[in-house]
Formats: sequence, C-alpha cells, structure tokens
Amino acid sequence: MPEKLPGEFEFIRNINRLFLPLVPSGTEGIGDDCAVIPLGNGELLTVTTDMLVEGTHFLRHRITAFELGFKSLAVNLSDAAAMGATPAASFLSIALPADIAPAWAEGFLHGYKSLSEEFGVPLLGGDTTSSQTGLTVNVTVLGKVSAREIKRRNAARAGDAVCVTGVLGDSAVGLKLLTEATEYAKEEHKLIRMHHTPKPWVKEGAWLGTQEAVHAMMDVSDGIASDLRHILNASGVGARIELSRLPLSPEMTKVCRERGWNPERAAAEGGEDYVLLFTADAEECNGLQKDFQARFGAGFTVIGEIAAGKPGIEWYRNGIRVPEDFRGYEHF
Amino acid sequence: MPEKLPGEFEFIRNINRLFLPLVPSGTEGIGDDCAVIPLGNGELLTVTTDMLVEGTHFLRHRITAFELGFKSLAVNLSDAAAMGATPAASFLSIALPADIAPAWAEGFLHGYKSLSEEFGVPLLGGDTTSSQTGLTVNVTVLGKVSAREIKRRNAARAGDAVCVTGVLGDSAVGLKLLTEATEYAKEEHKLIRMHHTPKPWVKEGAWLGTQEAVHAMMDVSDGIASDLRHILNASGVGARIELSRLPLSPEMTKVCRERGWNPERAAAEGGEDYVLLFTADAEECNGLQKDFQARFGAGFTVIGEIAAGKPGIEWYRNGIRVPEDFRGYEHF
Repeated sequence: MPEKLPGEFEFIRNINRLFLPLVPSGTEGIGDDCAVIPLGNGELLTVTTDMLVEGTHFLRHRITAFELGFKSLAVNLSDAAAMGATPAASFLSIALPADIAPAWAEGFLHGYKSLSEEFGVPLLGGDTTSSQTGLTVNVTVLGKVSAREIKRRNAARAGDAVCVTGVLGDSAVGLKLLTEATEYAKEEHKLIRMHHTPKPWVKEGAWLGTQEAVHAMMDVSDGIASDLRHILNASGVGARIELSRLPLSPEMTKVCRERGWNPERAAAEGGEDYVLLFTADAEECNGLQKDFQARFGAGFTVIGEIAAGKPGIEWYRNGIRVPEDFRGYEHF
Repeated sequence: MPEKLPGEFEFIRNINRLFLPLVPSGTEGIGDDCAVIPLGNGELLTVTTDMLVEGTHFLRHRITAFELGFKSLAVNLSDAAAMGATPAASFLSIALPADIAPAWAEGFLHGYKSLSEEFGVPLLGGDTTSSQTGLTVNVTVLGKVSAREIKRRNAARAGDAVCVTGVLGDSAVGLKLLTEATEYAKEEHKLIRMHHTPKPWVKEGAWLGTQEAVHAMMDVSDGIASDLRHILNASGVGARIELSRLPLSPEMTKVCRERGWNPERAAAEGGEDYVLLFTADAEECNGLQKDFQARFGAGFTVIGEIAAGKPGIEWYRNGIRVPEDFRGYEHF
C-alpha cells in the first residue's frame, strides 16, 4: 500500500475527532484491523473495508484482471483473519471505465470468485457504476468471532514471543521489480505474483483466534517495522527483533543479491505481505508451533520478543544490538 | 443516479451467474435494497453499499463538500429504511485527489456527521487513500430488523394501495437545473438542494416495517416508473397509477411551468428522490395514514393500486387510461 499523504492523515484525524463521540459503548470503531460490533450471546461481528484505486494501488496494465479481483478480496479477508474472525460475506463496489473489455470484467470476477469459493465467503451485494476516469474497487468483508476468541492489537505482554506466518519482503521486492525493471527472471515473476495475489491466512487466523496462548494479532500490510509498532503502541510495551530470524524466501534473497538490493530492509520495511503478525506466551510457543505445523503443514517463525518498557523496536543482528531504525514502507 | 451502461448490466449479470451458487440458504444477496444475513434469535442484519464517483454521480464544482458528505450517507440510510431496518453503523471509503483542500475535507465530514448524529448511526471505519484522478466515495451501512418486520420488494398483493412518502420529481428537476441552467431563482435553489441533500426516511421506514398492513417496500432511486416495476416483477402483480395523484411540490410545478418542462414526467421518471415507495392493505390504509400523520406530522400519498395480472404499470389521468409508457430516469 502506498504511503499516506499528509492530507489523508489529517482526514483520518478529523474522522476520529468528529465521530469517536458517536461510537456506542461495547462497539469498537477505527483503530484495529476491523471494527467490532457485539451481536449478543458473546458473538461479535467484524467489519473491514479497503479501497483499491488505479494509479495509486495498482497499474491496470501491470496486473491481470484475475489478479486484481483476487487481491481486492484477499486484503479484506486478511483483515478479518487478523482478528481471529472467520469471514462470512463480502460486498463489492466497482467503478468501471468505458474501456474495460467484457473479458477483463469476467477475469476480475473469476479472480474474486476463486477466493470466495476457497473460503466459502459469498458475495452478497455491492454497487457497479461507470467511471469517467480510473478504475476503483471497494470491498467490504463481514466476519464473525466469539468475544472469547477475538484477537486485538492491544494484548501483547512483556515476555511474549513475536511471530509471523509466511515470509516477509516478497511482495515489496515484487513491487520494486514492477516499478524499476521491465524484464524478469523466473523467480522474479514469482515475487511479482506474491505482490499481486497475496495469500490471506484465513484458516490460520481463525485457528490462532481459538488459542489462548496467542495474545495480540494483526496482519502485515505496511511492513513489520511499521505494523509491529501498532501492536506496541496499543499494548504499551516494547520489542526486540532479531534480524537474522526474519523469514526470507530463497527467491527474494537471490533477486536482492543479483540486483544489489537489501533483503533485510525489504523484510523489515516492505509492505503488503499480508502474513499474520502475532505475539504468543513464550512458554507455550513450542506447543503452539507443533499444533500449527500439524494442522497447516508449515510452521510460523519467531522473530523476537516483547519487552517491558516504552513502545519501540530494538533491532538485533546475531544477538548484537544494531542502530538501524527501520520505519515505513519500501525504502530498501 | 445515472443510467447504467451496457457493460455494467453485463457485469451485474455475471456477478449473479458466478456468485449466486455461493449464497447460503437463509441469506439474501443481490436483488433488494439491502442484502440480508440472519443473526439468530429472529434478528436480521441488513447491508447496503453505494459508490459515488466524480463525473458520474456528481460534479465537484457544483455540489458543496457538506452536501456530498450528507448525500453519501443519505442514500445508504435510505436503503436500510427501505427494508424497515434501523441503520446501526456506517463505513466510509474515500479516494482523495491531491487538490482537495483541508476545508473541503472538513466540510465533507461535517455533512456526513450531521446525518450520523441525527439518526445515531456511528461511523466505525473505512479507508482513506489518495487518487491520481477523481474523487470517489463508497459508503456501507449496516442495519438491523426483526425477521417479522422486514419489508421486501416481493410482498405486494393485488388490491394493495400504492403509496409514497414525500414528493416526487424535485430531485430530477434539481438535476436538470444543474445541468441545463446556470442562474437560478429561489425555488430552483431549493430543488437543487433536494437533489444534493435528499432526506432519508429513516424513522418512517423503521416504523412502516413494524406495520403488518405494509406489504412491499423500497426506496425511489431511479424514479417510480422504474422502481415500482421492481416491486411488480418481484411480486408477480401489476399496478394502476393515477398521474393526477402524484405528489408534486409547488416549487417543482412552478419551475416546470416557467421552463416548459413536464412535471408529470419528472415525477414519474425522475430519480433520486429517495422517498419510500410501499404497498399497503387497502382497507387498513386510512388507519395507517392517520397513525403515520400523527407520528411524523405529515401523511403519505396513495398514488394507485396493485392489480392482479402480469407485472406492468397502467397509467391513468383523472380516471382515464392513458397510453403513456413512462420508463427510465430523467427524460422529461
């Protein structure tokens, strides 16, 4: 996701200032991956929405229709999973420029449908309209989770292990390839695919939600350097991250080596991996890892620990504190 | 709302074809003002979403920021009301071009907030992003209604009275003024305001939902000639409409007379009035009218009756059948 402009931050601040007083007690608005509305009987409704704008979030000639349809739903399913919720329904609004061909529209819907089918999330409505300018897509996903199993950003505790599902940095390197190169080797195509069709960790998120050992959780949309800070700020704790433990794919490290890019920075700052970032009780982490591995066929990776103290990340390389101050997204 | 282009209809047909098989039993997807999801205990969740695109739905230099914020929420509240539901939460996605001034953004949020406050509908989330081209707004509204009180389009019965709240055609004449004139008399400004800040009949819709005498209901977004046909098709009945009974505002008739426009056609075909169109048991209609009047300070208008037979509208003028075939939106 591109960095936000000052005007956008201002807009979001104004929303918080103007609308926070209207949020009823027990309901959670802006501030986590989803809004949360109590349904009674200990059940919660989660709601998330994401807008993808041509020229800002994607270039129409660089992403296939199938991929864009897939990604539009994937990023929203990821937000539901990030709270331990099971996505239950989606809504699609799309503004179509006149030059969209029927085959393109069909491809978009097939990409969207492939994820709808995989996770049993029906498309229940939306809005289709014309656009005089670019293509814009907005997707809303509703999910359900019990009040006992929901995971929020504010539940990290000192001593917790910091964990991620999947690998970091593939998507960011894929985006860098899209914007800075024109011819690609085979493994480079794979990284671009990771950027265009990120896997939403739907089943893993719902299962992690059921685990008491898991404390805080969110998805990685802006890079762990940025996203982990959201957990730290919400929880009032710090973190120590070991850079040598960041899970990197062999394709990503190879491409970075060949192109002279910094894989560590791509993994720490690169956005849009949409893996789950969570903290878990350190003593239960081994058991959790085994159960996760048995259930999903692959483990998660422990990349550091939560520490008492002020929110902020201390970075280590092979056990030695380093002065790096990784921040936003995509500066590797 | 502008007429849809062939590509949009094709897109919607494809959505129905591809996604209908995924809709679980008991859940209602595309086809009414809102999607409907059972929550258990006889409670239903309604979901509606509308996208407003610069150049398609509005011209940024012709609508104030306050009005656009107001209208973005109003059209969605209207969809909830059209099913007898009480809106419970909203979500706002907005793509902001770089030339949006802070004061504009603030005005937009104040317009949105004025309706949020009036009806106690909190804004719980959304997405703020930048746009390289036009301004796009997408709003999603969740509502709640009991399964016994929800009103759908498919419940009209032969003999029912056909009723509308409010007046017809103001918004369409307002739009025609915006696009075809540049200087306006006082009452013309009022019609333009009706186009830019339509009243959502939130409390009236929720109350009509509780009335067993009310059968089918929807809101008027495309004009009654078009929208009533949705009720007729869904219910498998016809209708006789008396043109002399269409409720017209004095401002609208005056402007049409002065400018040589056809007020009857504006009322029959003009869209975006966002009044409620409903059918009610003819024998109970007088009592319903009195209760409605007592509660809301103004009555509704009976404009015709539902008839057995094929879906379709027969138009009458002062009791005499006329050959008019009013259709779409905005051809007066």
